[in-house]
Parts: sequence; structure tokens; C-alpha cells
Amino acid sequence: MDAEDQPIDTEAERDEDAYALSPKVVAAILDAVEEGDRERLIALMEPLHAADIADLLEQIHSDERRALIQLYDREFDGEILSELEESVREEVIGFLSPQVLAEAVRELDSDDVVDLVEFLDEPQQEAILDVLEDVDRAAVELALSYPEGSAGRLMQSEVVMAPEHWNVGQAIDHMRSSDRLPDAFYHVILVDPRLHPIGNVSLGRLMASGRDVPLKSITEEMFRVIPVTQDEEDVAYAFNQYHLISAPVVNEDGRLVGQITIDDAMIVLDEEHEEDILRLAGVGEGSLSDRVVETVKGRFPWLAVNLVTAIMASMVIAQFDGVIAQYVALAVLMPIVASMGGNAGTQSLTVAVRAIATRDLTGSNVWRVIRREVLVGLANGLAFALLMAVVGYFWFGSTSLAIVLAAAMIINLVIAGLAGTVIPVVLDRFNVDPALASGAFVTTVTDVVGFFAFLGFAAVYLL
Amino acid sequence: MDAEDQPIDTEAERDEDAYALSPKVVAAILDAVEEGDRERLIALMEPLHAADIADLLEQIHSDERRALIQLYDREFDGEILSELEESVREEVIGFLSPQVLAEAVRELDSDDVVDLVEFLDEPQQEAILDVLEDVDRAAVELALSYPEGSAGRLMQSEVVMAPEHWNVGQAIDHMRSSDRLPDAFYHVILVDPRLHPIGNVSLGRLMASGRDVPLKSITEEMFRVIPVTQDEEDVAYAFNQYHLISAPVVNEDGRLVGQITIDDAMIVLDEEHEEDILRLAGVGEGSLSDRVVETVKGRFPWLAVNLVTAIMASMVIAQFDGVIAQYVALAVLMPIVASMGGNAGTQSLTVAVRAIATRDLTGSNVWRVIRREVLVGLANGLAFALLMAVVGYFWFGSTSLAIVLAAAMIINLVIAGLAGTVIPVVLDRFNVDPALASGAFVTTVTDVVGFFAFLGFAAVYLL
Repeated sequence: MDAEDQPIDTEAERDEDAYALSPKVVAAILDAVEEGDRERLIALMEPLHAADIADLLEQIHSDERRALIQLYDREFDGEILSELEESVREEVIGFLSPQVLAEAVRELDSDDVVDLVEFLDEPQQEAILDVLEDVDRAAVELALSYPEGSAGRLMQSEVVMAPEHWNVGQAIDHMRSSDRLPDAFYHVILVDPRLHPIGNVSLGRLMASGRDVPLKSITEEMFRVIPVTQDEEDVAYAFNQYHLISAPVVNEDGRLVGQITIDDAMIVLDEEHEEDILRLAGVGEGSLSDRVVETVKGRFPWLAVNLVTAIMASMVIAQFDGVIAQYVALAVLMPIVASMGGNAGTQSLTVAVRAIATRDLTGSNVWRVIRREVLVGLANGLAFALLMAVVGYFWFGSTSLAIVLAAAMIINLVIAGLAGTVIPVVLDRFNVDPALASGAFVTTVTDVVGFFAFLGFAAVYLL
Repeated sequence: MDAEDQPIDTEAERDEDAYALSPKVVAAILDAVEEGDRERLIALMEPLHAADIADLLEQIHSDERRALIQLYDREFDGEILSELEESVREEVIGFLSPQVLAEAVRELDSDDVVDLVEFLDEPQQEAILDVLEDVDRAAVELALSYPEGSAGRLMQSEVVMAPEHWNVGQAIDHMRSSDRLPDAFYHVILVDPRLHPIGNVSLGRLMASGRDVPLKSITEEMFRVIPVTQDEEDVAYAFNQYHLISAPVVNEDGRLVGQITIDDAMIVLDEEHEEDILRLAGVGEGSLSDRVVETVKGRFPWLAVNLVTAIMASMVIAQFDGVIAQYVALAVLMPIVASMGGNAGTQSLTVAVRAIATRDLTGSNVWRVIRREVLVGLANGLAFALLMAVVGYFWFGSTSLAIVLAAAMIINLVIAGLAGTVIPVVLDRFNVDPALASGAFVTTVTDVVGFFAFLGFAAVYLL
């Protein structure tokens, strides 16, 4: 059968299938809440996954949230808390009755509790830790002792390990007799007598091997040990780059203290991406469920930075007010040069920021990339110079104006390619997140250069 | 120990740890290639993972690439091909001798071969399919018969399944006696007599349960079946939202045809993110290893769209040339209003595009989000109106000019919030990727509104 012949689901069906949470379901749930019909609410929520319920809570109004949670009461599941965004999470915790909260938290794994409490205020954090059993509380407090954003915060302490000299049969018997296996695990970790991990045996491989086979002979080729203080960003990179499913975490002495599984790494990767996209757009942290005041506060600083750069560009224009007064066409055309430079610069900078994040832009190829971006700027500059010269000539009937426009366009697009690459690379060298700060710098450069080149050429050439 | 007391690795150590591929290693390898020292090259490459070797090949020059591959010869591993970016992959395949290529491809799993050949030209594709054994070739060709970007292309056909009435002991015995278990699997899939999947039993749970326990009683709570034609984007969403590790894939009749594992989903998620970021910045597909010509071609259309919108903005300015000739200060200040609007619009639009991608912005909350963005625009508009009025007054000493500036700023930031949300939502409704097209529309709106409001008010108020 040919690929073209394959029926793709219609959009409607796809939506049906992909969204567990349809607007129709949301409306029905809000309806049940309004009528105070607890049984109907529970029936409607029953098929929903905790992640979908969390999405629902994020999408509705704060008053509806409170009403829903109070009506839902004891049905509230701990996993919903784990899935909620921070901004909504704190509010929801406040809505829960102490008994419901206690029950919800006790259901969770220790790494989920860590994730839940690490950004809470002291009193809320205490309230949650207090309901945990001593063993769990100790595990959570140990994890909290590791730096924020480190592997130690991400790992779960439950692991399955085996001495390096065991064979397959011993490992299987051990697991079958153990009464506290983790909820999710994919490897048996081989350890030496000092508890240093020396290899991973996948459960699949274990199943496929005879009982007498030594574990040592069937360890996976790919084996990475993660230091407990390693940055979670590097952990996510390793999982993504080497296709890891789980990896052992070790303390400063190299002793096994826990494991990180791919689902945790996937969440970190997702967050890093989100952060990059939002930072590139000059949106600080923030989510759709933030209130107006928080959102204004989050966006104001970035607009303020932009205001400063815009004023700098205006000051360049102000130097040429005499020329503009004589040739108003300059005022009409100058935003084009600046805008094209800004766009070309953003293109280069986005490619560079992404390449730095994925570690594809390194000391080994930085000069080649800069050279390429400058050449790309030159090529596009020449193309658009020609286009703009034609536009300028036919619009204002002046050959000189067309030449000035063309020259400024070439210069600005070359500078855009250069600045768009060099600025993020330099910021990265100084350990400033290039996604965070490059945009403002690059557009300042392209605005200033664009206005200066265009108006400067005009002053020399037209007067 | 307190979190603050924890020593974080210094940057140098972190780099050492996180980058298997340091510029030093790259330099040593290129050195060995230049000297034609095959043994040293092999020794240097030996500790590197296929993914790192692929990164290396992407970072070096095309001539170096050819020399390295020819020197490395038979050592070349099939997995390196899987890890390469498409643009470099085709070139590398061309550099490999037919025997080396054949050997490299035969090592791969069927889903990796699909990934490898699906975007190759017909002759290259044929050359690779020809070296496969008949069974593998049939599996690859079946996968290629599913639509591009569908679950069918992503899945592996190797699965471990068990009849629904089996118990733990039977499943384990079956696996231990099977001689063709997949390389990586995490679940035993329970199927009914018609081969419809009805549940997943995780290997960990299997290990933890007695031999007599029926499989049906220990299936995972979370179970999603993926239709073979489902879009890979929806597959990745499901894995991310529901923390799946693997999921069965079924054909139109609901029969089990394969499975998708989390590592494949993670790659898709990563690609989707990359695409979103690049599209938001007006960079088409493309990678750091593309040549200048390809890069120019990729970026030109986006700059051309921007040129059209910039010219539209200029045409608005041209309507007011008389006013500008009288008050040159207007030409100096007008880019500020447009630039602030453009930035605020980009903020709103990025948040909206992300929220649509993560399905947090739905029919249920779209009006609330639009309302919020407009209010945020109003609040920031008022703040910056005040600031700019002060700047305008002290810079040009004119109260009227300050009032015009402030009024235009408020209007443009409100419109930015509105356009930044409504435009991506509408594009999404019409099945146009909002990441792709929103930027140009939104900045057109903010430029046109910014210039028109500012110059229009000035024309009325200052003349």
C-alpha cells in the first residue's frame, strides 16, 4: 500500500483520541460542581488521569477550583498535586482539608514528595513533612539537602542492586523474595563491596538469559554514573544523548545513593525547552494560570530593557534630525532597514542559542559557524538590497536613495549575522544564559547599526 | 547538611563530566586523521558513544569528514548513522564503501533502519534496503507504508506478548525459552484471542509477583493503545502527559502490530520543541551543519515576509510625511512605540503558542486568557506610557508630544496583547501551525497600529 493511500484520521477524530480533556467534559464537570452534585462529579472525573485533572484545575477559575476541590473532597489523589503547576499547586494545597492533604501525600513516592515541597513556603512544607512516616520523611529531607536543580533532588532512593558476582538466578530469586521493590525500575544495578555501581543489567536481558549466566557478562554497553550534585540539565542531556532508561546516582565517595529514570529526565528536558522558548521571547518564568498582576510583573522588566534599547536607537536617529527634516522619505524607509536587521539577527541568534543548548556549537566549530552566519547575512543582504533598491527607486524616484537603502541593508544583515552568533557565544562563555540576554543585545546592535548606516549614508550622499 | 553548604562542581569539572566530546578530543582526532594514523584514530574513537561520534562528524568540515570516514573504514558503526542529522547523513552514506554501509545497516533494529532511509533519495534508499535480509526488509517496507510522521514509522515490530489467561510463571518461562526477545522492552503485553492488546504488565511488577499470580491481576493502571496512523506529535504528547514507558501500537482492526518506547517518544518531543523554537524565530528547518546556500534559502522566505510587513508599516508612515516634516521629533520617537508593541506582542504570542502546543490553551479557557493578556497589555501600557511621557517631555520639552506618545503606547500594548493571543488561536483553528505564521502577523499589527496611533494622534493634536 502506498503512503499516500493511508487514511489519516480526520481532525475531529484525532482530537477525540488525543485529548482526554475535551471542552465538553470540562463544561460538564463545572456544571456538576455548580449544582453541588458530588456523585456526578466523581463519575465524570473517574476516567480522567491525574495529569488531565491537573490540567483541568489549571484551566478553570480560582473560585471554581475551590468549589470543585471541596466537593471532590476525599477523592482527591496525591498524584494530582504532583502534576499541578507550581502557581496553582500552592493554592490547591490551601483548599485541601488537612486529612485529605495528609492522605494524598502519603500515597506519593519520595521523589514526588520532594518535587512537591521543594518550592513551598516553610509552613506549608512543614505541614506536609509532618504527615509522612519517619522513613519517608528522612528520605525527603536527605533529598532536600542536595542543591536545588541537582541530580539529588531528581533521584528516587529506591533501587534494586546485586553484588557483582551474582548470576541471573540469584538476582531473580532475590527480587522475587524482596517485599519492597520500587514501583518502577528497569535495571538491576551491579555493585562492588564498597557499593560502587559497576554496571547495569536490564530486566529484559535478565529475562532472556539462563539462570547460570553471571550478571557481569550481560551488563549494558552504555553505562553512565551520575554524581548526586550534577546539574539536572546535564542529567537530561545525558539521557537524551545516550538514550538512557535509568542511571545510578552516586555520592561524593562514589557510593550508590539512588537512581534517576527516563521519565524524570524527560520532564527536565521539557522544562528546559520551555524556559528557552520563553526566555528567547523575553517572557520570564510564568504560566498561563498566573494572575494578571504576576504576569505584568514577569513581563515588565523585559519590556523595560527593550525600552532602553529603543531609546538608544532613537538617540541615533536624533543625530540626523536635520537630514530627516529635508528628506522625509528617510523617516518612511528607515524602519525597514532596522526591522530586517532585527529579524535576521533573531534568526542567527536562535540557531546559535539552540546549538549551544544541544552542545552542537562548541570551541571546535565556532569560527566556522560565525563565518557561515556572516556569509548568509551577506548573501541575504545582497538579495534584499537589490529588492529594496527597486522599491526605493520606484516609490520615491531617487537613485541616490535606492543606493543608500541598499548599502545600509547589506551592512545591517552582515552585522546581524555576526552579532547574532557572537553575542550568545560570548554570553555563554561568561556563564550567562544566552537565551535570556541575547535578544536585547542583538536587536540593540541591529537597530543602532541599521539607523546609523542608513541615515549616515544619507547624510553623506544626499546632502 | 544544609543545601547551601553543598559544593557544586566548578564549571570546568562539570564540562569535563558532561561533555564526552571536548574540543581537545576533537583536535586530537583531526590530528590523527591528518597524519593518516589509523590506529591512533581508532584508539581515540573507542571510548566515544555513537551519538558523540555523530556530533563530531557534524561539527567538522566536509573534507575532514570524508578523510575521517575513509580512514576509520570498517570500524564505522551503524548506530552512528542513526544519530546523524539528515543533512550530514546523506553525505556520510555517500562516503562509506558499499561493504561498510551494508555491514553498518545490518546491525540496526528495523525502526532505526526506517528512520535512516525514510528521507533518503530513491537510489540511496534502494541501496540500503538491498543489503537487508528478507525478514528485516519486509518489516522496514511495512513501516514505510505508513504515513510520514505516524506512529507506524516510529514503532518497532518486535514485542513480547502473552495470552490474557496466563500467570506470571507462564510468562517468565515463555520469555526464558524465547530466543528472539527485543533488545529493549519494558512490558509484557496481554492480548485477547484476536490479538487485541488489553493490558500491560511491567517487568518490574512481574519480578515482584508470585508465579501463580494471574497476569490480568497485575496490569498497570495506566494503559494507552496507539493507533498506527496516529500523528507522532500526539504519541509524544501521550508519553509526556501520562508518563508512559512503552505502549502497544494497533492497526485499523485493533490488532497488535508493534510497540513504541519512551526513548523514541523523547526524540519526537525534542524535535517538536526544536521546530517550535526555530519557527517562532522565522528560521525554517535547518541545522548548524547546513551549508551557506541551504541556510540562505531557508531564511530568505521569512525575511521576505518580514520585508512585506515592514513596507506596509512604511506605507502607514508615508501617510503622515507632512506632520513628520514639521515635527522631526516624531521620526525620532515613532520606532519606540512600534518596538514596544512588537516586543509585547511577541511575549503574548509565545505564551499562547506554547500553551497551544502543550494543550493548556483550549476552548475552555481561551476567553479568560485573552482577557488576561489584554489586561496585562493595559497595565504595562499605562506604566510605559507614564515613563515615555516623562522621557518625551524632558527630551523635547513638549507636553502635547508626551501625551501623544503615552496614548499611542497604551493603545499599542493593548492591541499587542489582543493580537498576540487571538492570532495564534485563530491560526490553530484553521490548522495552520501558530508557531510558523503568528510572528509576522503580530508584528505587522503592532507596527501598523503603533505608527498609525502615534502619528495619527500627532496629526490631530499637534497641528
